[in-house]
Amino acid sequence: MWDASPYDVQIHTTLNREEALKDADFVTTQFRVGQLDARVKDERIPFSYSLLGQETNGAGGMFKTFRTIPVILEIVADMKRLCPDAWLINFTNPSGMVTEAVLRYGQWEKVIGLCNVPVVAKMEEAETLGVPQTDLIYKFAGVNHFHWHKVADKKGHDLTPQLIDKLYEENSGLPKNIFDVPFYREQLQQMNMIPCGYHRYYYRAEEMLKHGLTEYATEGTHAQQVKVIEHELFELYKDPDLDYKPKQLEQRGGAYYSDAACETIASIYANKNTEIVVSTRNNGAVPDLPADCAVEVTAYVGGAGARNVAFGPLSTAERGWLQMMKSMELLTIEAAITGDYGTALQAFISNPLVPSGETATRVMHELLIAHKAYLPQFADTIARLEKEGITIKDEVVRKM
Amino acid sequence: MWDASPYDVQIHTTLNREEALKDADFVTTQFRVGQLDARVKDERIPFSYSLLGQETNGAGGMFKTFRTIPVILEIVADMKRLCPDAWLINFTNPSGMVTEAVLRYGQWEKVIGLCNVPVVAKMEEAETLGVPQTDLIYKFAGVNHFHWHKVADKKGHDLTPQLIDKLYEENSGLPKNIFDVPFYREQLQQMNMIPCGYHRYYYRAEEMLKHGLTEYATEGTHAQQVKVIEHELFELYKDPDLDYKPKQLEQRGGAYYSDAACETIASIYANKNTEIVVSTRNNGAVPDLPADCAVEVTAYVGGAGARNVAFGPLSTAERGWLQMMKSMELLTIEAAITGDYGTALQAFISNPLVPSGETATRVMHELLIAHKAYLPQFADTIARLEKEGITIKDEVVRKM
Amino acid sequence: MWDASPYDVQIHTTLNREEALKDADFVTTQFRVGQLDARVKDERIPFSYSLLGQETNGAGGMFKTFRTIPVILEIVADMKRLCPDAWLINFTNPSGMVTEAVLRYGQWEKVIGLCNVPVVAKMEEAETLGVPQTDLIYKFAGVNHFHWHKVADKKGHDLTPQLIDKLYEENSGLPKNIFDVPFYREQLQQMNMIPCGYHRYYYRAEEMLKHGLTEYATEGTHAQQVKVIEHELFELYKDPDLDYKPKQLEQRGGAYYSDAACETIASIYANKNTEIVVSTRNNGAVPDLPADCAVEVTAYVGGAGARNVAFGPLSTAERGWLQMMKSMELLTIEAAITGDYGTALQAFISNPLVPSGETATRVMHELLIAHKAYLPQFADTIARLEKEGITIKDEVVRKM
Amino acid sequence: MWDASPYDVQIHTTLNREEALKDADFVTTQFRVGQLDARVKDERIPFSYSLLGQETNGAGGMFKTFRTIPVILEIVADMKRLCPDAWLINFTNPSGMVTEAVLRYGQWEKVIGLCNVPVVAKMEEAETLGVPQTDLIYKFAGVNHFHWHKVADKKGHDLTPQLIDKLYEENSGLPKNIFDVPFYREQLQQMNMIPCGYHRYYYRAEEMLKHGLTEYATEGTHAQQVKVIEHELFELYKDPDLDYKPKQLEQRGGAYYSDAACETIASIYANKNTEIVVSTRNNGAVPDLPADCAVEVTAYVGGAGARNVAFGPLSTAERGWLQMMKSMELLTIEAAITGDYGTALQAFISNPLVPSGETATRVMHELLIAHKAYLPQFADTIARLEKEGITIKDEVVRKM
Repeated sequence: MWDASPYDVQIHTTLNREEALKDADFVTTQFRVGQLDARVKDERIPFSYSLLGQETNGAGGMFKTFRTIPVILEIVADMKRLCPDAWLINFTNPSGMVTEAVLRYGQWEKVIGLCNVPVVAKMEEAETLGVPQTDLIYKFAGVNHFHWHKVADKKGHDLTPQLIDKLYEENSGLPKNIFDVPFYREQLQQMNMIPCGYHRYYYRAEEMLKHGLTEYATEGTHAQQVKVIEHELFELYKDPDLDYKPKQLEQRGGAYYSDAACETIASIYANKNTEIVVSTRNNGAVPDLPADCAVEVTAYVGGAGARNVAFGPLSTAERGWLQMMKSMELLTIEAAITGDYGTALQAFISNPLVPSGETATRVMHELLIAHKAYLPQFADTIARLEKEGITIKDEVVRKM
Repeated sequence: MWDASPYDVQIHTTLNREEALKDADFVTTQFRVGQLDARVKDERIPFSYSLLGQETNGAGGMFKTFRTIPVILEIVADMKRLCPDAWLINFTNPSGMVTEAVLRYGQWEKVIGLCNVPVVAKMEEAETLGVPQTDLIYKFAGVNHFHWHKVADKKGHDLTPQLIDKLYEENSGLPKNIFDVPFYREQLQQMNMIPCGYHRYYYRAEEMLKHGLTEYATEGTHAQQVKVIEHELFELYKDPDLDYKPKQLEQRGGAYYSDAACETIASIYANKNTEIVVSTRNNGAVPDLPADCAVEVTAYVGGAGARNVAFGPLSTAERGWLQMMKSMELLTIEAAITGDYGTALQAFISNPLVPSGETATRVMHELLIAHKAYLPQFADTIARLEKEGITIKDEVVRKM
Repeated sequence: MWDASPYDVQIHTTLNREEALKDADFVTTQFRVGQLDARVKDERIPFSYSLLGQETNGAGGMFKTFRTIPVILEIVADMKRLCPDAWLINFTNPSGMVTEAVLRYGQWEKVIGLCNVPVVAKMEEAETLGVPQTDLIYKFAGVNHFHWHKVADKKGHDLTPQLIDKLYEENSGLPKNIFDVPFYREQLQQMNMIPCGYHRYYYRAEEMLKHGLTEYATEGTHAQQVKVIEHELFELYKDPDLDYKPKQLEQRGGAYYSDAACETIASIYANKNTEIVVSTRNNGAVPDLPADCAVEVTAYVGGAGARNVAFGPLSTAERGWLQMMKSMELLTIEAAITGDYGTALQAFISNPLVPSGETATRVMHELLIAHKAYLPQFADTIARLEKEGITIKDEVVRKM
Repeated sequence: MWDASPYDVQIHTTLNREEALKDADFVTTQFRVGQLDARVKDERIPFSYSLLGQETNGAGGMFKTFRTIPVILEIVADMKRLCPDAWLINFTNPSGMVTEAVLRYGQWEKVIGLCNVPVVAKMEEAETLGVPQTDLIYKFAGVNHFHWHKVADKKGHDLTPQLIDKLYEENSGLPKNIFDVPFYREQLQQMNMIPCGYHRYYYRAEEMLKHGLTEYATEGTHAQQVKVIEHELFELYKDPDLDYKPKQLEQRGGAYYSDAACETIASIYANKNTEIVVSTRNNGAVPDLPADCAVEVTAYVGGAGARNVAFGPLSTAERGWLQMMKSMELLTIEAAITGDYGTALQAFISNPLVPSGETATRVMHELLIAHKAYLPQFADTIARLEKEGITIKDEVVRKM
């Protein structure tokens, strides 16, 4: 593909991390510990108990964190040795929690977390409003997959109310991999902000769960669908002469990821001060959260990294939600690092998408067992659960 | 009863509020707008859709607030005129939100909210630990029906871990009107605090809902059970010679309310600086919440009211929960005052016990219609819903 | 001058404020209530008692605020009527307090305060470091005339330590109208930031006072020197054929003010997102100050105004200073609006450049009397002081 | 004296710290590193340059901290080994900074700092108001030697305005060792609080300095006066039959220290919950300062130590002052521990009683040299200064 492109680029590939990191200027990370099979488990085990299973939200999302944080911290440890001047540009989900862990536990400042949700939202909303994106002024605040934004015209007049109106006429700028259930219009009017697509899990929990359960019961969960597409893609990729993006790629989700990555790297490299929505250290940009935690905000990205735009205090409803979510994130990360059972339980119970009680605890136990190979920090707990005879209910997962 | 008591007290009764308030030193408020029938609706309508219906938590609790806040603010307005030096000692549930509304919207500083939950917890825990209560040092922080506490011996050594252990041996100090489901031991150990009984709704949501639904389907919800007891009590009260507390009173819930009230009043009157857990303006006692909001904390109560004991920052999990709950409280109160539909929706969606979506919205609509007589602030919305033909599903409520 | 310039610009002049404001898109304000004679008094009266007299700092600066705030608020009131969509671009000193007053008491959001101090600092430091300014990344935080900044190269490497070293080799980027006394090198190293020139008044109070007293005793205070230059300039300006900036203008101070103004206006007008250091609502950019107060920070200025770069928490020393200064600013503005004597006293005593006691109070009294014509809000106090026979000591001022 | 007292108490004396600490329940510390001669230097060296020299304020107070902090941290280290359950009750000045250092750097929670200033203020104000102290409700907030309080009657009515009025009729409750200069009445009315006696150094800086300079020039500074009294006292103490407090003791300053100590110890020992004003960890009681720093506030002292009364936010002027003072305290402690010259300079420049510049720096240098024996942490700096030939100007000190 590079040969067919107009760019003169040298590609070096390796499966040796040390070799890859040595003297790097930029390190981009996009990995899935346990690959799509692990994601299948993250999705199916909760759904088998009628709880939400999803990659970054609900019970499944927490286990993705448990598997990912130890690995990203190993990478950071290697970077300190092998490329201490490099920037870490991370897409690995949950992108916000990964950034938080890198800052807080990795003690590594040169990190930027990226996500395509704001990219797509901006593009689609410009289309919805019928103006070029460059004529709009956006301001985002929140954490990854849980942020809101406001939009103004280039004179600074707030277009948010108008955009809310339009959203109820037309397609709502929904990320491709989220089932299309509308937000409550009066809720959006009260907040006078646009939530991100993932807010549907919180603002329309019932419908999002129902949709997931239907998929679970029929064509398979999202990971299972993606597996099929990926299989096709990998077959195509076997052809060394393939020099264009296969059409299946669009169905895959994650569009514009590479654009966001390249733009961020180019902005840092050439000190371009491009406006990008990134996960980064707060520094006060969202004053309702501690200054030292990770947030996802509009920033001007240049040679010194992200310069966050100070958003100012959120309104009552959004403030409460965000503080709860950050607490859940911090607990999840702490559990991922310590492997403490009580902390994992607190994280689970704090997750607004996981109704507390025996079912949730059972799901947590099954997920611990299912992901045993990738959760050495929980070895003692898993051993105890196995001794207690906990087994996995979902047939598909059991066979994996 | 007073004649039979050793106290020389003059009782004056009136149904005229102005007469009652005139020149009062202390005003105690314990009322239920719409009486127990309204509570039946608060409980049954959510349960009819398998959502939690409860007096102070979940969907029902929010409607109790919607009905109560306008009335308490009227009382405060009257107090400003008729007894501007009086103290308002409130038991009306939700006691914390009433205190918040009186401080924030009533601009009335001389208010103390009371609840018997901390009173009972202290008594039962002393028994559990096998020491007199005076040998224990308690420190509470949170908001009404959502607080935690720590307990130490009189040398200041933390007994919380030991108490947690004991709770799993013996009776757990559970308020009488909450179904007995244990907290997760490892969760309590992680927080190293004792939650209040109402935390079961949040930490064991599944079981608490299940229990409520069982009652709903069989002997009737709590309000219905209380109605039976109250009927018996009122029959007994018809006898002017009755000079002792009837035994049914103990089944009623709300034990030690009068003790708490008298102790608070006596402490203010005689500047006794008694240690009481009260709802009061924060002033920094719980630094994770704004200094101007209402909290429920250990305080020394004397002539100048409550002098809150500064608790210090909460841990991650408790901080997130508390911030979310305060946000929900503030939204509920705002909706109670403005009657704004969008704000009510935001409050509902922020409530951790109300999974967002069509069912929750339907429940909110039915409750609006069911409580029409007591919700003049929502008149426009109710008219719209009636026009849309929203009717109440629960048969029992429909007949009320 | 415009005719000689390559720009096609129409100039309309008027002394009628309503006419000037009508339908404006941008309003720039640069005025001096009481003109330079008032500044002479601000400077000479404090110096006559060996206290610092200066335009924006010390006793004199506070009186400039007392005279200016009521007028700027009148202008804002007129703008609400005559040009409600306009932006107010203010240079009037004290630029930070004017911005604070416009936001807080004028309830006017579309305001940006400008100052040439950061402009000059950036230019001179680029020269000191021997690199083009575009190769440097600056980050400012503080309040007007009391801010610090850090500088990095375009790879984000902190150059602050290196710049500190250079400052002790070469010219220190000092604003032209401040006497050249060096900062303590070890102090700068400890903070690892560059203070602004006005910090000399606080970090080298003794020398700055001594220098002012020498000028007071010899060639006259700064205002007196400027009066001479202005007289020459106004003589030159009488010539309608004068089509270049006279060389005297450079000695006047305030260089690059017009550049900053034009750049700001152009950036807002064309939504250019230019990086400019401005006085603006904090919104969390400086987390050590309330989110709703005015700060002076690096911002990206575009159609929606200033988008502040979140600076993050300051270190201990800078945090304390800044909090003290903001407190002094708020008290000064409050006194300017209420005319309350006790508040003025608190402001004076809070000013780190005004040692409290009888001399400071005497200076405050003399300044109240000297500026009587411009301080209607203090009329009662001034009448009382006149009755007490307070007279002005400084001979020059007495004759004005 | 104990034999003549009605109490049956065993006294054991030792100069061996380990022996004294072994298995202690309470450790009280009241020491002066370098004894009164060091205090003479703290006072005389600043005065020799017309700067304030005082034990806890100004330049001298900072050096008392530099000498004291390392020693108190050694004591804490010993306590961890020898009496890990003991309480440290500290009177050593500066009592607030010692408490801060013990909490922050000693990691020792069981510490209470005491001071007689609030004790005396309460006593004298009760007398001023003509009511028994038990009929008054006090609320203190601030840091040691820099706190304010409010007073109410036992019905909670604010008596502060009335007390302010009385203070201008009668004796003002001034600590014995502070020269009697009145606060500005309008300042007190604006704050509606009572400052502590030491606030005179900040609110009447000019007069306090003048008074100190007069003493310096005539009968000698306070330390010199105390040395004379102490000499007399020690002569008397040589008599083993002396069984009463000599009258000279009253002139010594520090009255009621022993009462405060005994009351605190008894309250902790018997879990009495006595109301005492103490230096303790903030925990939110003064929300304008970080929750983890030391403050001086009203607290209920019992078996678990100090339970601080949450004061709530301060007003603008007091907030700014307090934040500045806490910053200065933190810098002074940090310099005391690290011996870093730049940090010491920042602390000095942050001190509102030390006008920055060459004189202040010179004073700092002379004090470093004068206290060489007690400042091992500054050894390198002192060596450098000695090499530069810095000598002490004050003749009296030079001869010591």
